[in-house]
Amino acid sequence: MGRWEPNARERLATAALDLYSERGYEQTTVAEIAGRAGLTERTYFRHYADKREVLFDGSGALQELFVNAVAEVPESAPPIDAVTAGLDAVSTVFVGRREHAVRRQAVIVANAELRERELIKLASLSAALADALRLRGVTEPAASLTAEAGVAVFKVGFERWIAANEERTLAELMRESVGELRAAIGVGS
Amino acid sequence: MGRWEPNARERLATAALDLYSERGYEQTTVAEIAGRAGLTERTYFRHYADKREVLFDGSGALQELFVNAVAEVPESAPPIDAVTAGLDAVSTVFVGRREHAVRRQAVIVANAELRERELIKLASLSAALADALRLRGVTEPAASLTAEAGVAVFKVGFERWIAANEERTLAELMRESVGELRAAIGVGS
Repeated sequence: MGRWEPNARERLATAALDLYSERGYEQTTVAEIAGRAGLTERTYFRHYADKREVLFDGSGALQELFVNAVAEVPESAPPIDAVTAGLDAVSTVFVGRREHAVRRQAVIVANAELRERELIKLASLSAALADALRLRGVTEPAASLTAEAGVAVFKVGFERWIAANEERTLAELMRESVGELRAAIGVGS
Repeated sequence: MGRWEPNARERLATAALDLYSERGYEQTTVAEIAGRAGLTERTYFRHYADKREVLFDGSGALQELFVNAVAEVPESAPPIDAVTAGLDAVSTVFVGRREHAVRRQAVIVANAELRERELIKLASLSAALADALRLRGVTEPAASLTAEAGVAVFKVGFERWIAANEERTLAELMRESVGELRAAIGVGS
C-alpha cells in the first residue's frame, strides 16, 4: 500500500461520476478519473477493481442494511412488515443525496453494461432478502415472492423519487409503493 | 442464403443444449454445435447471432404471447387478472417441455454471462408488461408494480415447476404463486 490519501475513495467516486456525466461512461478512462481526483491510477485500483465498480460501491452496504433491518423486526410480524422496515432503513441512506442519485441513474441508464450490473445487484438483493425471510421462518414460495415484491417496490419507488418535480421523500414513496402494490394485486379473482 | 436445411433451427438448438449440458457452455464452440447437428457454421450464423442466443430463441415469442394475453382481457377486469391471463397463456407453451426446461436452466445457472442474459430478458418482459397495462388505462406506479409482480410470479413459479419431485403443471404453480404473493403481502400494517 502507498501513502495515505485523505478521502481518496470518495474523491475518486466524485471524479468518476463527474466525468461519466460530462463525457459519457465509455469515453472516460481510469487515468482521467484519477487525474481529476488529484490521485494516481495505482491509487484508483487500490480502491476499485474497474471503471464500473466505482458506481456500485454502496450496493453491498445497502444490501446489508436492508437485510439487517428485516432480521430485526420481531418474528411475530408478517413478512411484508419486515420488508417495509428494510425499505425504511435503506431510504435513510439516500437522505440529502437525491441530486447524486439522479446523476448516477442517468449514467447507468445510458449504458447497457451498467444496466446489466444494476440488474445483477438487484437480483443479489432479492436472493439475500429471501434468505433473511426464510431465517424468520417464512416458507417458500412466500419468502422468494415477498423478496421479489420488496425489490420491485425498491426499484419503482427509487425511480419515482428521482423523477423530475417529485418532492416527497424516498421513504414516503417506498411506503406509498407498498400500498399501491397491495391495492393493485389485492383485488380481482 | 444457402440451400434449405430442413428444421435447421431446431436441430441447432437441440445440438447446442446437448453439448452445453455434456461439456459446459464455455467449452463448446459453434463449430461443434453445427457439426453435431450435421450442419455448417455458416448455417448456424444464419439462424443465431452467437453461442448465447440459441438458448434464448423463444423469449421474444414468449413476451409477445404474454403481452397479447394481457391486452385481450376486458378492460373492466383488474390488472392482476390481466397478468394472470398472461401467466396462463405462457404456461401453455411449456406443456410437455419440462425436461427441456430443466436442462436449459442447469446450463444457465452454471454461467454468469447466461444468468445476466436471463435477467435482461426478464427486465424486458417487465417493461413490456407495464406498457401493456398502461394501454389498459392502469396508471403509474400501479402498472410498473403489477408488471414486476407478474414477472416475480413467472420466475418463482417457473423455478418451482422445474424443481425435483414437482408434479403440478406450470399453470397450476403460476396461479398458486399469485395466491401466495397476495397472501404474503396482503396482511400486516
